[in-house]
Amino acid sequence: MARGLKGRAASLRRFFPILEWGSAYSKDTFLSDFVAAVIVTIMLIPQSLAYALLAGLPAEMGLYASILPLVAYAIFGTSRALAVGPVAVVSLLTAAAIGNLGLDSMAEYAAAAITLAFLSGLILLVMGVFRLGFLANFLSHPVIAGFITASGLLIATSQAKHILGVEAHGEALFDRLATLISHVGDTNLITLAVGAGSIAFLFWVRKGLKPLLMKMGLPPRLADILAKAGPVAAVAVTTLLSFAFDFAGHGVSIVGDVPQGLPPLTFPTFDLDLMGQLIGPAILISIIGFVESISVAQTLAAKKRQRITPDQELVGLGASNIAASLSGGYPVTGGFARSVVNFDAGAETPAAGAFTAVGIALAALLLTPLLYFLPTATLAATIIVAVLSLVDFGILKRTWGYSKADFSAVAATIVLTLVFGVEAGVSSGVILSIFLYLYKTSRPHIAEIGLVPGTEHFRNIDRHKVLTHPELLSLRLDENLYFANARFIEDYVLDRLAHDQPIRHVVLNCIAVNVIDLSALESLEELNRRLDDMGIKLHLSEVKGPVMDRLQKTHFLDEITGQVFLTHYGAVMALGPVDGLKPKLAAE
Amino acid sequence: MARGLKGRAASLRRFFPILEWGSAYSKDTFLSDFVAAVIVTIMLIPQSLAYALLAGLPAEMGLYASILPLVAYAIFGTSRALAVGPVAVVSLLTAAAIGNLGLDSMAEYAAAAITLAFLSGLILLVMGVFRLGFLANFLSHPVIAGFITASGLLIATSQAKHILGVEAHGEALFDRLATLISHVGDTNLITLAVGAGSIAFLFWVRKGLKPLLMKMGLPPRLADILAKAGPVAAVAVTTLLSFAFDFAGHGVSIVGDVPQGLPPLTFPTFDLDLMGQLIGPAILISIIGFVESISVAQTLAAKKRQRITPDQELVGLGASNIAASLSGGYPVTGGFARSVVNFDAGAETPAAGAFTAVGIALAALLLTPLLYFLPTATLAATIIVAVLSLVDFGILKRTWGYSKADFSAVAATIVLTLVFGVEAGVSSGVILSIFLYLYKTSRPHIAEIGLVPGTEHFRNIDRHKVLTHPELLSLRLDENLYFANARFIEDYVLDRLAHDQPIRHVVLNCIAVNVIDLSALESLEELNRRLDDMGIKLHLSEVKGPVMDRLQKTHFLDEITGQVFLTHYGAVMALGPVDGLKPKLAAE
Repeated sequence: MARGLKGRAASLRRFFPILEWGSAYSKDTFLSDFVAAVIVTIMLIPQSLAYALLAGLPAEMGLYASILPLVAYAIFGTSRALAVGPVAVVSLLTAAAIGNLGLDSMAEYAAAAITLAFLSGLILLVMGVFRLGFLANFLSHPVIAGFITASGLLIATSQAKHILGVEAHGEALFDRLATLISHVGDTNLITLAVGAGSIAFLFWVRKGLKPLLMKMGLPPRLADILAKAGPVAAVAVTTLLSFAFDFAGHGVSIVGDVPQGLPPLTFPTFDLDLMGQLIGPAILISIIGFVESISVAQTLAAKKRQRITPDQELVGLGASNIAASLSGGYPVTGGFARSVVNFDAGAETPAAGAFTAVGIALAALLLTPLLYFLPTATLAATIIVAVLSLVDFGILKRTWGYSKADFSAVAATIVLTLVFGVEAGVSSGVILSIFLYLYKTSRPHIAEIGLVPGTEHFRNIDRHKVLTHPELLSLRLDENLYFANARFIEDYVLDRLAHDQPIRHVVLNCIAVNVIDLSALESLEELNRRLDDMGIKLHLSEVKGPVMDRLQKTHFLDEITGQVFLTHYGAVMALGPVDGLKPKLAAE
Repeated sequence: MARGLKGRAASLRRFFPILEWGSAYSKDTFLSDFVAAVIVTIMLIPQSLAYALLAGLPAEMGLYASILPLVAYAIFGTSRALAVGPVAVVSLLTAAAIGNLGLDSMAEYAAAAITLAFLSGLILLVMGVFRLGFLANFLSHPVIAGFITASGLLIATSQAKHILGVEAHGEALFDRLATLISHVGDTNLITLAVGAGSIAFLFWVRKGLKPLLMKMGLPPRLADILAKAGPVAAVAVTTLLSFAFDFAGHGVSIVGDVPQGLPPLTFPTFDLDLMGQLIGPAILISIIGFVESISVAQTLAAKKRQRITPDQELVGLGASNIAASLSGGYPVTGGFARSVVNFDAGAETPAAGAFTAVGIALAALLLTPLLYFLPTATLAATIIVAVLSLVDFGILKRTWGYSKADFSAVAATIVLTLVFGVEAGVSSGVILSIFLYLYKTSRPHIAEIGLVPGTEHFRNIDRHKVLTHPELLSLRLDENLYFANARFIEDYVLDRLAHDQPIRHVVLNCIAVNVIDLSALESLEELNRRLDDMGIKLHLSEVKGPVMDRLQKTHFLDEITGQVFLTHYGAVMALGPVDGLKPKLAAE
């Protein structure tokens, strides 16, 4: 009974990490979390508005997506410092998903975004409960890097129209650039001045403000955090200018009415047609969002020797997205920049996220009327400056030097994302990575090996001076044996034997073989029969425990004409005398 | 110049294997080939009619597909004994591909089949020229076995309507059985007698005729070959009965008018819409046909110590299918049963195939009027008896005992082929095999290893009595390091260290690692940094040549806190003294 209760408490703690850290919550922890929350709130207000704009949604949805989802993550998440909310890449994916639906009104857009958040939350929850977090591993680092770089470019160019104050459409880069260029004559000069000025200011804040503040005597960490508040200054100044000089009257696009008040209670549209169209994008958003979030969370956790639980992170992010769909938000995930700020500002527990939510809720209640005159170009500038730091073509050079397969995956992901959009790009990248890996393993390295004189070690005859025996062929199979390479290995051995007449024994060294699947087993059986026809015996050496366990369930070990040796040295020494031969090994 | 000519002759011989065997052709070879051709012709006449019926095409298309394609293969193919022509599984795939188009008339069906043969030939040629034969390796043995078994069942049930003389439709098994059962009351008893009688006769021929003929004093090989001619006897007897007793007048379906004469000159329909719909099925037909053909060809070549060239086989089969499309045929490939008969009957060169073509051409010129009264039920019976030998549920038991992943692939392929049809079945099987292999390698076996006392060998501490050191963790990574498992390995090591405080060195043994891709390299760098934060040094041992070559192009070898050791024993011996520790290893 006591055990049952304990077990139930442990499983409750698995699903509600808040029970773990909440029970030890102290005044000191509260103060740290509170300070971090204030700083993150200041950073998050312009970001959340800007990312809603990027997603093609009303600005207030960015604020709504930064309230309840943060509370949900505080209850279910395992990272102590992750700051959840709207992020650039997920906003871009949301824009692409909803833009493809052919909707007319902003109300329909909003309803679709809410449904997308719901589906994405559901998928994340299901993945968490069934421990499917490993699926994210199929996004290789090169594919992620290529996708992030291409997304950064797509996002930056998507905002160019707001900086110029002109029209431009198209999801793919070239469509968009073409319409942009055809409208460039309509540029609104005040808009351009606000946009370009904000961009210049924000870049200066990134590079120049921190050193300046430090010269003025501020401690480095504080200077760093203040510099992160640069976007708020840009928002305040351009809003004041817009109000004072009636920018709107001069054709400058402004944010306009943002509803004042707490998030409304909303529900996803249970329209099977719409859900069917959104399920693909929702899966992509879930996995990309999860990958981005978990990378940040793990990096920050490692700095404090904490561990996060990937499958519970899925539950946390799932709950956040469900919360977003119930409170007028859109898909959210853990953001990189804001999590680092949260961590640096001293956040100790997920409660900091809940306090940030309170801050944003206060902003939604009190500050929204002040945003009326905010120029759209200012928000576009904060997006452009934020995402250009994501663009990193260096990955092309790094992968080129290391592996052509990785390079191909990066290059294809970048090009296809730019040309055909985010969904096509990332899917092609994943499929190409998998195909290239399978292709590589389908033509494995097979080394002919010989004895290193004076030792019991065997090495590649092409790389080392080693001893061999004319009647004995030693091959080390440098790959798992499975369907994609089963026939390759069979053909390789038979072709090798076609050139070399006196061979009477073939020993396959299996030290690097971790799997022999049924296709490969059947190929080995076939090879054994064919070698038998040719009067050649087939032997194996250094077969691993788990592989041997499996072979023992089959007839192969009875059928094989030769033996299975524990060591390759043992094989070579044994095969000489057995056939009345001296083990007279000759240098190659 | 002389070299250039020689090179040109060699490459001519690569693409025209006929130049190789043709130059040494003798009268003895001719006699052997001729005898084999006569026997295969007798076997092929009823088969080619029956398979055309199975494909849903006019009977004469089966004959046409057995003339020019055989000549084309004789020129371009490399197998000495392969007999090309219409086969059961490809006919089934053709029926499925064309049945999905929603065509009305038999003329449209025929045009689509001709186009399908053309596309399939083109794909095979392209695969041959670009040496893409390895793609066929992604069809694992379990998927092929499952597909063949399910196809056998689908084909047999598709013929049941001809045995009963009723209507039945539907590509999937259950649709078809449902309509069959609803019409079972319409059974034509004479048709049933002909069909069931033929089935019983043909089964008896398979099992009982050969022993009987041998008892009568015939040599075993001749008895075997005569037994293979059973279908011809069934065709002759039932045609005579049908003629004598006016079966057609009693509602029995008969073959009817088969045009007399040589194949017509035909061309594919260059309709992009149609080609777009047929390209998917054409790829499937090409790959499945290639796999079937090459398996037979390799088995037969091995018996005579000959080798075939898979990429040239693609050219040979491609030329055959193009030939089929130019002469009123439909997709063809190398057939199992008839190739074995050809081989057993003594065929020495591909000329036997050309002589068979002459035989079938004579049949098309002279025999077709005799086929008028042939009951369809007789042809259905020959198909049923032929394909039931393909059905082998034993593969389920074999894979269950060996590997659950292989079992899942077989089971899924069988079930999905039966329920959703051949294309869905085989595609799902391939995708599932790949996914299961990737899943397995994404959670690799990692062995903690220790020193076997008195040796320099290291073994799994869970399987052997070995020596370990409390400050040193030795892990053998039993898998390639790549994107799908990069994070798993990182997490595994960190989790392992969370339980064990005194560890100061981690040595990763890489003897079984054949690949480290960029994702895995970045994970190793991350692991190195995190271990460094924890005051633990990371070392590698026994890194293979090709992997080391690649690592040397990166900064990793400069950044790693520990060393790279040639042998694991060297690592363990070196790490004690370096840190002022004795290498005092203790039994686990």
